[in-house]
Amino acid sequence: MLDAGRSVLAAQAFSELMGAELERFEPGSADLRLPLRPQLRQQFGLTHGGVVSYLVDNTLTFAGGSVLGPEVLTAEFKVSYVAPAVGEALIARATVVHQGRRQAVCRCDVFDVTEGVEALCATALGTIRSVREPAARDAD
Amino acid sequence: MLDAGRSVLAAQAFSELMGAELERFEPGSADLRLPLRPQLRQQFGLTHGGVVSYLVDNTLTFAGGSVLGPEVLTAEFKVSYVAPAVGEALIARATVVHQGRRQAVCRCDVFDVTEGVEALCATALGTIRSVREPAARDAD
Amino acid sequence: MLDAGRSVLAAQAFSELMGAELERFEPGSADLRLPLRPQLRQQFGLTHGGVVSYLVDNTLTFAGGSVLGPEVLTAEFKVSYVAPAVGEALIARATVVHQGRRQAVCRCDVFDVTEGVEALCATALGTIRSVREPAARDAD
Amino acid sequence: MLDAGRSVLAAQAFSELMGAELERFEPGSADLRLPLRPQLRQQFGLTHGGVVSYLVDNTLTFAGGSVLGPEVLTAEFKVSYVAPAVGEALIARATVVHQGRRQAVCRCDVFDVTEGVEALCATALGTIRSVREPAARDAD
Repeated sequence: MLDAGRSVLAAQAFSELMGAELERFEPGSADLRLPLRPQLRQQFGLTHGGVVSYLVDNTLTFAGGSVLGPEVLTAEFKVSYVAPAVGEALIARATVVHQGRRQAVCRCDVFDVTEGVEALCATALGTIRSVREPAARDAD
Repeated sequence: MLDAGRSVLAAQAFSELMGAELERFEPGSADLRLPLRPQLRQQFGLTHGGVVSYLVDNTLTFAGGSVLGPEVLTAEFKVSYVAPAVGEALIARATVVHQGRRQAVCRCDVFDVTEGVEALCATALGTIRSVREPAARDAD
Repeated sequence: MLDAGRSVLAAQAFSELMGAELERFEPGSADLRLPLRPQLRQQFGLTHGGVVSYLVDNTLTFAGGSVLGPEVLTAEFKVSYVAPAVGEALIARATVVHQGRRQAVCRCDVFDVTEGVEALCATALGTIRSVREPAARDAD
Repeated sequence: MLDAGRSVLAAQAFSELMGAELERFEPGSADLRLPLRPQLRQQFGLTHGGVVSYLVDNTLTFAGGSVLGPEVLTAEFKVSYVAPAVGEALIARATVVHQGRRQAVCRCDVFDVTEGVEALCATALGTIRSVREPAARDAD
């Protein structure tokens, strides 16, 4: 299952650009790791919030996809940034809070890693939706 | 004011990587444009949700910064994706809904542009916070 | 259409307890008014946040129902409180931002009214979902 | 500490109207229980979403207040409803995810209780803010 997830991640050109790695992918949970580098920073030298939100979006979707199958999209999410993200990497851990037939509500915590020590930098809650029917302009 | 905003954007390494352009920057509002390219896609060939969330995060922050000054951070936001993002570019338009002394609540709509025609693909609501005091690990 | 909406509101025992009134109900929008009284306050004498969130929830659902039909539920919403709610009444105005087949993304602003003057006290964004299929424990 | 919390709850006229009870109040967490009665229903006979959102709002605020002190307000929250709320009572359990000097990010799960069995019906994430300075129209 981890190999299948890694194939999906490898097929995401943007995740390749970001450098994300799928560390865990089990029914109901997913962890993504993102090594930090200068290109991912904002003007104060901290990790850009958009980098964190990318990781939230993608880890939520992997967690939802772990129970709904590979054809899923993020319907919506809310993220709270609680501390600036610094250090050598980010690790995002998402779990399914509730699974329905066509969607899953998932939670995600993002930690930064400095010399191996993790600290919470963001927490999020979102909805992942199955899109098994033929793709259409309309997202639902 | 637009030139000052563009300098801030140019100082964000991640925004340089993404290719975002500041199109409008006035007291209470900001527009960011992001030309789309294959590197910004997910596995179905659509724009990655993390690209949209980056643009939401950044445009909300510029709108908040337009009234709070340049030393601001995104405290939190919620984004609803309403349609897949395709076409040649994304344009995000954010406005300040309410301004307090230390924070601003802002709204943002993201449109994709296909042959010059805009269509809504996401809408968001978030809080931008001033961080004028000395930077600390604690975000607030 | 306004009469039909008022019948729905009258069938909500909790809305009767709260005293909400449907002021406008058109395709794509709904306004609910709530006269304020001491029973709706918190310990500082301001309107309780739960009163505002009730009004957000219900007005979003009416707006969604205006395009999806009467069998709808609120899937999720996010509310930002921007000022304490005081005065003689609250008025919530919700509009549909995007309508899909089975759900609608809606926005809602809540104003308090003091001597006839409206001031924004909260803004919200949420998802309303059609539940036309047989009711089940599972919300989606 | 539980007694002090119950005094605060008793001073909230709206919580008296709702019938909420503070079951637990410790540094970093709070549980509120709400017995269900017909007056709290919507038109389909289920618990009104506004009742759930009231409980989310209030339990988040108690959790935040458990670490920030009694002078707090809810700045914002996002709630996802995952199943209709039925049964004899609701129980909301909130915990502090991150505490700053002036605000706390808190999480809340709401369960309905049917013949003593709890089932998740909503989950939420929000920000509680200290308002120790003199009250003003401006919420922050």
